[in-house]
Amino acid sequence: MAQRRVGLWMIGACGGVSATTALGLAALTRGLTPTTGLVTALPRLAALDLDEPAAFVVGGHDVRQATLLSAVRELHRRSNVFDERTISACAPDLEAWSANVRPGVSFRPNAALAALADRPDVRAVPSPKAAVELVQRDLRAFQQAHKLDQLVVVNAASTEPPFEPGPECDAADRLAAALEKSTTALPTSTLYAYAAIDAGFPYVNLTPSRGASLPAIEGLARARGVPLAGQDLKTGETLLKSVLAPMFARRNLRVHSWVGHNILGNRDGQVLNDPENKASKVRSKDALLAELLGYRPQSLVSIEYVESLDDWKTAWDHVHFEGFLGTKMTLQFTWQGCDSLLAAPLVLDVARLSLLAQRRGESGTMGHLACFFKSPVGVTEHDFGKQFEMLELYAGG
Amino acid sequence: MAQRRVGLWMIGACGGVSATTALGLAALTRGLTPTTGLVTALPRLAALDLDEPAAFVVGGHDVRQATLLSAVRELHRRSNVFDERTISACAPDLEAWSANVRPGVSFRPNAALAALADRPDVRAVPSPKAAVELVQRDLRAFQQAHKLDQLVVVNAASTEPPFEPGPECDAADRLAAALEKSTTALPTSTLYAYAAIDAGFPYVNLTPSRGASLPAIEGLARARGVPLAGQDLKTGETLLKSVLAPMFARRNLRVHSWVGHNILGNRDGQVLNDPENKASKVRSKDALLAELLGYRPQSLVSIEYVESLDDWKTAWDHVHFEGFLGTKMTLQFTWQGCDSLLAAPLVLDVARLSLLAQRRGESGTMGHLACFFKSPVGVTEHDFGKQFEMLELYAGG
Amino acid sequence: MAQRRVGLWMIGACGGVSATTALGLAALTRGLTPTTGLVTALPRLAALDLDEPAAFVVGGHDVRQATLLSAVRELHRRSNVFDERTISACAPDLEAWSANVRPGVSFRPNAALAALADRPDVRAVPSPKAAVELVQRDLRAFQQAHKLDQLVVVNAASTEPPFEPGPECDAADRLAAALEKSTTALPTSTLYAYAAIDAGFPYVNLTPSRGASLPAIEGLARARGVPLAGQDLKTGETLLKSVLAPMFARRNLRVHSWVGHNILGNRDGQVLNDPENKASKVRSKDALLAELLGYRPQSLVSIEYVESLDDWKTAWDHVHFEGFLGTKMTLQFTWQGCDSLLAAPLVLDVARLSLLAQRRGESGTMGHLACFFKSPVGVTEHDFGKQFEMLELYAGG
Amino acid sequence: MAQRRVGLWMIGACGGVSATTALGLAALTRGLTPTTGLVTALPRLAALDLDEPAAFVVGGHDVRQATLLSAVRELHRRSNVFDERTISACAPDLEAWSANVRPGVSFRPNAALAALADRPDVRAVPSPKAAVELVQRDLRAFQQAHKLDQLVVVNAASTEPPFEPGPECDAADRLAAALEKSTTALPTSTLYAYAAIDAGFPYVNLTPSRGASLPAIEGLARARGVPLAGQDLKTGETLLKSVLAPMFARRNLRVHSWVGHNILGNRDGQVLNDPENKASKVRSKDALLAELLGYRPQSLVSIEYVESLDDWKTAWDHVHFEGFLGTKMTLQFTWQGCDSLLAAPLVLDVARLSLLAQRRGESGTMGHLACFFKSPVGVTEHDFGKQFEMLELYAGG
Repeated sequence: MAQRRVGLWMIGACGGVSATTALGLAALTRGLTPTTGLVTALPRLAALDLDEPAAFVVGGHDVRQATLLSAVRELHRRSNVFDERTISACAPDLEAWSANVRPGVSFRPNAALAALADRPDVRAVPSPKAAVELVQRDLRAFQQAHKLDQLVVVNAASTEPPFEPGPECDAADRLAAALEKSTTALPTSTLYAYAAIDAGFPYVNLTPSRGASLPAIEGLARARGVPLAGQDLKTGETLLKSVLAPMFARRNLRVHSWVGHNILGNRDGQVLNDPENKASKVRSKDALLAELLGYRPQSLVSIEYVESLDDWKTAWDHVHFEGFLGTKMTLQFTWQGCDSLLAAPLVLDVARLSLLAQRRGESGTMGHLACFFKSPVGVTEHDFGKQFEMLELYAGG
Repeated sequence: MAQRRVGLWMIGACGGVSATTALGLAALTRGLTPTTGLVTALPRLAALDLDEPAAFVVGGHDVRQATLLSAVRELHRRSNVFDERTISACAPDLEAWSANVRPGVSFRPNAALAALADRPDVRAVPSPKAAVELVQRDLRAFQQAHKLDQLVVVNAASTEPPFEPGPECDAADRLAAALEKSTTALPTSTLYAYAAIDAGFPYVNLTPSRGASLPAIEGLARARGVPLAGQDLKTGETLLKSVLAPMFARRNLRVHSWVGHNILGNRDGQVLNDPENKASKVRSKDALLAELLGYRPQSLVSIEYVESLDDWKTAWDHVHFEGFLGTKMTLQFTWQGCDSLLAAPLVLDVARLSLLAQRRGESGTMGHLACFFKSPVGVTEHDFGKQFEMLELYAGG
Repeated sequence: MAQRRVGLWMIGACGGVSATTALGLAALTRGLTPTTGLVTALPRLAALDLDEPAAFVVGGHDVRQATLLSAVRELHRRSNVFDERTISACAPDLEAWSANVRPGVSFRPNAALAALADRPDVRAVPSPKAAVELVQRDLRAFQQAHKLDQLVVVNAASTEPPFEPGPECDAADRLAAALEKSTTALPTSTLYAYAAIDAGFPYVNLTPSRGASLPAIEGLARARGVPLAGQDLKTGETLLKSVLAPMFARRNLRVHSWVGHNILGNRDGQVLNDPENKASKVRSKDALLAELLGYRPQSLVSIEYVESLDDWKTAWDHVHFEGFLGTKMTLQFTWQGCDSLLAAPLVLDVARLSLLAQRRGESGTMGHLACFFKSPVGVTEHDFGKQFEMLELYAGG
Repeated sequence: MAQRRVGLWMIGACGGVSATTALGLAALTRGLTPTTGLVTALPRLAALDLDEPAAFVVGGHDVRQATLLSAVRELHRRSNVFDERTISACAPDLEAWSANVRPGVSFRPNAALAALADRPDVRAVPSPKAAVELVQRDLRAFQQAHKLDQLVVVNAASTEPPFEPGPECDAADRLAAALEKSTTALPTSTLYAYAAIDAGFPYVNLTPSRGASLPAIEGLARARGVPLAGQDLKTGETLLKSVLAPMFARRNLRVHSWVGHNILGNRDGQVLNDPENKASKVRSKDALLAELLGYRPQSLVSIEYVESLDDWKTAWDHVHFEGFLGTKMTLQFTWQGCDSLLAAPLVLDVARLSLLAQRRGESGTMGHLACFFKSPVGVTEHDFGKQFEMLELYAGG
């Protein structure tokens, strides 16, 4: 039997997360790195019939002038990650895959995002519909060129500003109609999601952008029989919140205030330095406390761009809580994690799980992927332990 | 129908944890404080038919010259906890209950523990058996004097040094025989446990002392139809380990080293300053990592006595872990908690749950109390979330 | 010889800092507390002929309905500072001094400050000049009533928004002329400073408000022969910066970024929650790094109101620096200090030193007080060690 | 005029600090790295006529099988420092200098140190005198081979256990006599110091080993007209103590306890894991607090070997202090520094300053180098600011 071939298409293909994902795929395939960080490599998920790293071909869209290899080298140089030997060994794969990266589609980006777009062949389009068609053409061309059995699309692009969905976002048919009009105001992330799902490809939103978390998109996924997941990978501070807040709740310790201060220096940080774009992120990081605690403590989340940190996101959290007989106590933590390295294995995880879900004939939101996301679509459970049990249950069933 | 009356007998009755427990009971009964910190007050455990605070009468043993009120005042003055108004209002209860405190029984304590014993009427005994009988006489006298429907005994005394159980600890009948001999080397905590259980009273070991975690004691509990629980309340750093280590495991992040440095300045800290006694504590705090992670990272736990901190235990933990592509990252946390205030509500929780278990006719180790302990007897699960689900299941069934 | 009597007049007399200062004076006089925290009690400053605590009489202005005692009790209850015994013993002094507190003068406060003013007899005035005269009348009445040998005025009121001084702030005579006009826009802190200095009383600005740091005010102080100091007491995070930044500079370690995140929950915090008022504070905390390092690293200072912390200001600072061969390293610190308790002894220090300076015939800005302030008027040295040497030199000379 | 040539002879030549120093010299000479971290590159020391990096030739002793290049590569691989390009460019220098490294001399090392000695040609000697002569022969041979104008010897070897100096350490002549006897118990560090100074070479002890801080050695240095400095480079936690403790003292804040917990994973850490050797280090880190504060707070310093940290020493310090009116507050800091990179530029600094001192005709202990050391020989001042002023004074005079 021929080896299966599957495609991983990344929107924002030359960003830190995407480039690290590609390097990881190449390094795993070549046996140069262990599976540390890969949830789907855990023994307790071994029953799942997932695609091997060697099966993957990488492609994507980007608005920036960069290649997977240049992005990897930049991370190596600035953030002091990866080793020279791994990069050199995997460089041919990265170069080959970079040839699959197509210019992004641009439909009314906000200023912070537009500033990033330095690729000269970025394609401005007259209507949302035109953008969707361009994207679908790229996806199908990639599938055919590489004879892919399956293809999964993930959004790893920069965070968009929050947007208020209009009535056209309530149902798939209304959205289809709205796409035709050049006056329709829709975030780019909605267009990519629509394109992928409408063409029958599983879609995962790795970012806080809200453009794929719409009834219209979810309805389309069910209608097309396509699995869907998101939103916003849970990699650091929020992951900790989702295990610590349940602890306080179970011990009946009352959290008065939870302050989180995040600093980071990568491109994500630059975009978040724009107050508009930051708002999406803060919302996504902050919402789960009330759900987990059963009441709303005072909470503050701030994110600041600190250039010297590059990809090393550092978070300081200060939790002020009350115990027995009115006694106030404190928990503080500092998390020093490298964003791209925390996210990349999860990208592979959700890609593998989405491809499997499609083979199993599942469609719509994949609730069993809740443990990967800050704001899991279709799931209200935020307790990481309980979310993980959902995945184990799925793997065991 | 007459109001039920139940007894809470605390070994180490005038220590910080016991005195806070007594103050808490009085304050709850008088409506002076909310139930914050009390697990058994959570809505999700509401189905359990537990004794109200007002039903409790307090008594105990101690080897030190102190009263519940003097211990409360010392905590207030040195550790800056409680408020004057609550203390004043509850002083009559504390004084009345102090009259129930009997001199401790002393059978070959080690130096650090002996140094604490300044109560002149501490009773040295010629044999283990004599100690057991003295304790049982005190317990029964307390029960009769206060017409108690039930009585639960908890060990809140200072930590003993580790001890290696001999063959007499393997079975209840062998232990019974060994108690007769004056040459038998047994920790005091074994004697108290034997006395309580043999007399039919539920017993909970709140400390790291290993004297009640013996096949002989567990066998006796089953034989007498008495519920049993322990060991070592999980209040701070270890509680955090039991939620954070599963997080690392589920994300397949490899923990290379976990260093915990604890500083505290209360009597518990003074006793732990003795290397012998400290060994028990460190063992209890350190064991769970390997179970939770599935491998043994380098781990270091240190505990130091820092007088100025009084009851405010401060722990700094440094977790060094590896993510994808060999990238090392760090999580640090600082926990600043007041030991007595964290432990006291849990004492009430396990007391109430033990009394209920006895009414339900349960005997032997209470696995559903695992979430309260660092080294839960009879349970290998150390994941706090899963342990808590065992309690919820018990409450729901 | 009769005991000297000196007055300490505090603008914002019933705020946390002022009330703590008053309690401290009373407690020191009664021998109830050691001199810990009082710089002027250091042996190396013993040669200075300073006024004893017993010599002080307290008075002040406030716009809020409160007394020194109620403010002390509120701090005790909410922030868990002071002990009951000290408060009770000093209550008569606090009550007596509260009788000296006069209603504040209000001339066009901004919204955040106006919201605090709940004292019904606050006196709105038609012109700056009228405000100055009211204040001077209060000061002189206080002096006469208590037969004071000297009187020092300190500004301990809430932080004002930044203001851009106009040409009338350039010289004392221009300012005098401008005061006559009702259209003149001047911060209240300028009016109080003018009033005190013009009447011959030493003046110290404890706050970040810029109203007393003007050429006109400094000229007036020289003209009237009155000593002047400020601005913004250096009590916590900035104090640390002023000892740590010189360390980095002397080791030629290059600071890339210095991030400071401050959280606090007292009235000061409430006022700072207003972006306008916060700007003054942030500016004052941030300016010294460039001076101390010789270059401008990326620096971020944030201040957030977190109600549950009350007077306990907590600061997390993250310093990212480069060492030899391009190696990036990190220093983080967390400061947990009680604002009022850190500031109050310094208020006594600067009051005593100002009174002495006046007796010595000194006038204008007191450069030897630089070590007490974040933005010392008239001094460019920000290195705490060097600033302190200036004070030692003064004391030794 | 011909370019000057000076030798830098490092005992422990292939350890992390020495290898980094050599790499740094090569990189500075080639213009590949800025002078960050080098105190002697500060503008305020520009008046000193110091040797340029290009003037240095490196040699040394070591008991381990390694080269400068292999040590550099190991640091790069394990601790993620240096970049590939710098290493490659400097490799020829490192290889050339490694040819100058001679086998160490071994005279009764303790177990932890002996375990490190894997170089087969390590020379066991029959008497201290024989060791001294061997070392001197090596030094002179190096000087002649490279036509060196001057030569400085630094001790960068692993920490020795504490030792109690006998009467032979009181004077140079007594020590000379004692060296003859094979029964004399002297640490190896004394022998190296004696050899260097007796032969007329300046000597700097970079380690906590006490073997060069003896009246006999200091007397010899004066007699031979040779400058001497030490002991124990002040690179991280202790550097912070020496700026923070003066701050507490100057604000009259009473430090109750100062706890420092250090973790590290390099060879130094391995040797310190031996309790005997650790004792020297802890003593050196702990002594200065009492001198700086004027009283002795409770202080604890612990050092633990944590393999995964490699050269990244992490220190957590917890300072518990009392302010006004008995209020307890807390400062915590975490220092994450790479040991070899912090120390190496200081090695160059003290080497350059020692060579200059010799040219200036100075001999005996160099008090102006106090700012570089935890336990500066011949100086009681521990305040880093004041120590630095001593260096500035020297540079200015």
